[in-house]
Amino acid sequence: MIILGIDPGYAIVGFGVIEKLGHNIRVLDYGVITTPKEHTMPVRLKTIYDSLCVLIDKYKPDCMAIEELFFQNNQKTAINVAEARGVTVLAGMEKIGKLYEYTPLQIKQALTGQGRAEKQQVQYMVKAILGLSAVPKPDDAADALAAALTHAQTNQILGQNDIK
Amino acid sequence: MIILGIDPGYAIVGFGVIEKLGHNIRVLDYGVITTPKEHTMPVRLKTIYDSLCVLIDKYKPDCMAIEELFFQNNQKTAINVAEARGVTVLAGMEKIGKLYEYTPLQIKQALTGQGRAEKQQVQYMVKAILGLSAVPKPDDAADALAAALTHAQTNQILGQNDIK
Repeated sequence: MIILGIDPGYAIVGFGVIEKLGHNIRVLDYGVITTPKEHTMPVRLKTIYDSLCVLIDKYKPDCMAIEELFFQNNQKTAINVAEARGVTVLAGMEKIGKLYEYTPLQIKQALTGQGRAEKQQVQYMVKAILGLSAVPKPDDAADALAAALTHAQTNQILGQNDIK
Repeated sequence: MIILGIDPGYAIVGFGVIEKLGHNIRVLDYGVITTPKEHTMPVRLKTIYDSLCVLIDKYKPDCMAIEELFFQNNQKTAINVAEARGVTVLAGMEKIGKLYEYTPLQIKQALTGQGRAEKQQVQYMVKAILGLSAVPKPDDAADALAAALTHAQTNQILGQNDIK
């Protein structure tokens, strides 16, 4: 099973692609999609969607695992992030058809056994579980891998958004 | 010039299609896309995007005119609306390539000459300008027509999001 993990954003979208074979988990790719701040939001939304489609065509993941948004203090930023998350979820629904959403709490719980774990602790576990020599950078990519690992560890058989 | 006006939302997306020929403006269609509340947000986002694509294929508009979000008190609703607006903007960018955004203030100003006009006054002007026998219902459709009319009246030559 190939899982595409996503850390949503509008300036930076983190992604992590992992493959689970039995109890074995390995990294296929991770990184970020970035959009220039000189571009308007509609152009940035199109960049995010198109880049995700290329990524999905390349790795043909079986599902997308994406972090849920928590409420932010800056409403303008929150709206931009939510618009970008909308097109990200759409790419998962249109191009993959299976999508799973996890709260930050669920991700921390799955990776560290503790819902209130520090960010550094989660990143350390991403490195440890995947047998990497260092914590993946930038943070957005590590967070995306954490979302993918959460799905790999929760063994969900049927997602609420299956359309296949 | 055919203009697709949009009033963004996640439970109800208002749309209005108008054609401008010289100084003549006529309605081609208006209505709403609705998504059932029993569906998850990812499924609703897909429904909105797919429905908009069908609408765009049918009327082949030259551009989309869409209302900008203003900040809401309910953050959960604001995030849902913003996610839905994200996929709506994406449909305009992917399928049309020209997209114009107007604030509620700009729409009120364009239709009534007064940025602080009441909602009823804007709807009355939609009816009057389009020569309709009654105010279009529901409100979401009237608001979408108002966005389209705002674009028709502002005579923008080049939009900031032109990709053609």
